Amino acid sequence: MLFFGAKLLQKKIDIDDFTLHECGDSFALKPGKVSKKSGRSSYESFLTGIDLVRNKKAQALVTLPINKYAWSKAGIPYKGHTEALDAIFDTNAIMMLGCQKLFVALFTHHISIKEVPSKIKTKALYHFFLHFADAIKEESIGVLGLNPHAGDGGVIGKEDQKIKKAIQKANKALGNKRFVGPLVPDTAFSVQKYRYYVCMYHDQGLIVLKSKYFDESINVSLNLPIVRTSVDHGTAFDIAYKEKNPSIKSYINAIKEAIKLSA
Amino acid sequence: MLFFGAKLLQKKIDIDDFTLHECGDSFALKPGKVSKKSGRSSYESFLTGIDLVRNKKAQALVTLPINKYAWSKAGIPYKGHTEALDAIFDTNAIMMLGCQKLFVALFTHHISIKEVPSKIKTKALYHFFLHFADAIKEESIGVLGLNPHAGDGGVIGKEDQKIKKAIQKANKALGNKRFVGPLVPDTAFSVQKYRYYVCMYHDQGLIVLKSKYFDESINVSLNLPIVRTSVDHGTAFDIAYKEKNPSIKSYINAIKEAIKLSA
Repeated sequence: MLFFGAKLLQKKIDIDDFTLHECGDSFALKPGKVSKKSGRSSYESFLTGIDLVRNKKAQALVTLPINKYAWSKAGIPYKGHTEALDAIFDTNAIMMLGCQKLFVALFTHHISIKEVPSKIKTKALYHFFLHFADAIKEESIGVLGLNPHAGDGGVIGKEDQKIKKAIQKANKALGNKRFVGPLVPDTAFSVQKYRYYVCMYHDQGLIVLKSKYFDESINVSLNLPIVRTSVDHGTAFDIAYKEKNPSIKSYINAIKEAIKLSA
Repeated sequence: MLFFGAKLLQKKIDIDDFTLHECGDSFALKPGKVSKKSGRSSYESFLTGIDLVRNKKAQALVTLPINKYAWSKAGIPYKGHTEALDAIFDTNAIMMLGCQKLFVALFTHHISIKEVPSKIKTKALYHFFLHFADAIKEESIGVLGLNPHAGDGGVIGKEDQKIKKAIQKANKALGNKRFVGPLVPDTAFSVQKYRYYVCMYHDQGLIVLKSKYFDESINVSLNLPIVRTSVDHGTAFDIAYKEKNPSIKSYINAIKEAIKLSA
């Protein structure tokens, strides 16, 4: 498939730069088209990659975007890479997105705003913090509050006090003061004091990240037995195999971060 | 009070540049200290300003920050300017913050995240849009969805569909397509297509605004019978009468916007 794609793009590939692994059948790729075959092929290369890392033949897994309709057409029961990794490794991966200037870890992902407040529980946050502290060695990590003004002392919602308690418990267990917060969300990034932030919901972290570092961000899965990074964009079928110089910053950064994390 | 403050700062004031109005008693100002007298004084100058605009002796009201504890000490029953304006004019002012590059109007303000989803009602949004369209003459106004991916077609929460309905109703009533959305919140600002955005909750708008344009933003009250702008920062008692060159960008911008809006 690699050579087929390279031919379509009229690019030469020097095979001395890579170790190649066969995975699944080759077929005539149709750029920008959703198909069962392409879904199956991307899933098989994903599984091959996981096996290579699991068997210590590779140090890290770097994924490119998948098309969820193609996966679904091919009968793959996962919405995306993260769900598949959770199932394969029987864990709850921590989803962290960002670039060297700013990383945001999401405590909740693809749930409605209505469902968020009931997920803010001291115990669950505490475990999240410990797993996060295990994966990220940074000295100080900012933790955002949930409500405007981080609750203004309990006047605007009670959840921020649960976050405060979880931070205190985690810092006590770690024997340091790595987690700082709950920070007032709207000013947490105005003078950016930390490189890593824990955010309570999807858009709290991603609105800032995507408005400041749109094309260079990556996706990192933490709390997994393997190192896995990914680009932070979709398949872009509208420009696939057409645009001459699409931005590959996110891909380059995903590879760099994988090297760093597996060192 | 003006001359007292100017003396403390060792600044000369050319009174030919201003028309001065007496409001309340003068007293010995203590920089950076909360007091009943200063609370009363700031409230009286606020009321004097409102009267001047209401009686067409001035074209717009530009406010500087108040200390809410000073107001409370002086027995003033409002938490801040906006609440006082709502009561005085018997209306619901639209709170909009921003600068020339980006303005965000907030559909909900100082309520907890838990309370937000139940406020997202088609009728209330529709009226908000019409009031907003009346105040802001911009051709296109972006409207954010509530949930991640703007609900992903109803899969992540149902509120975004109510927002969509309200947008359609408002555009129909206006006979144009001024309101555009619901936009996916996390990418709404990555390639900024609009200058004005309607946001569903406090931090959805302010996280971006304060991370990008912290010291130049202002606060504008819309849907009031008078023009009112304000700085977008607090009293900063920690640097008041001390720091030699505090940023006055927000104040200058508040005056500029007031001139623009009252033209």
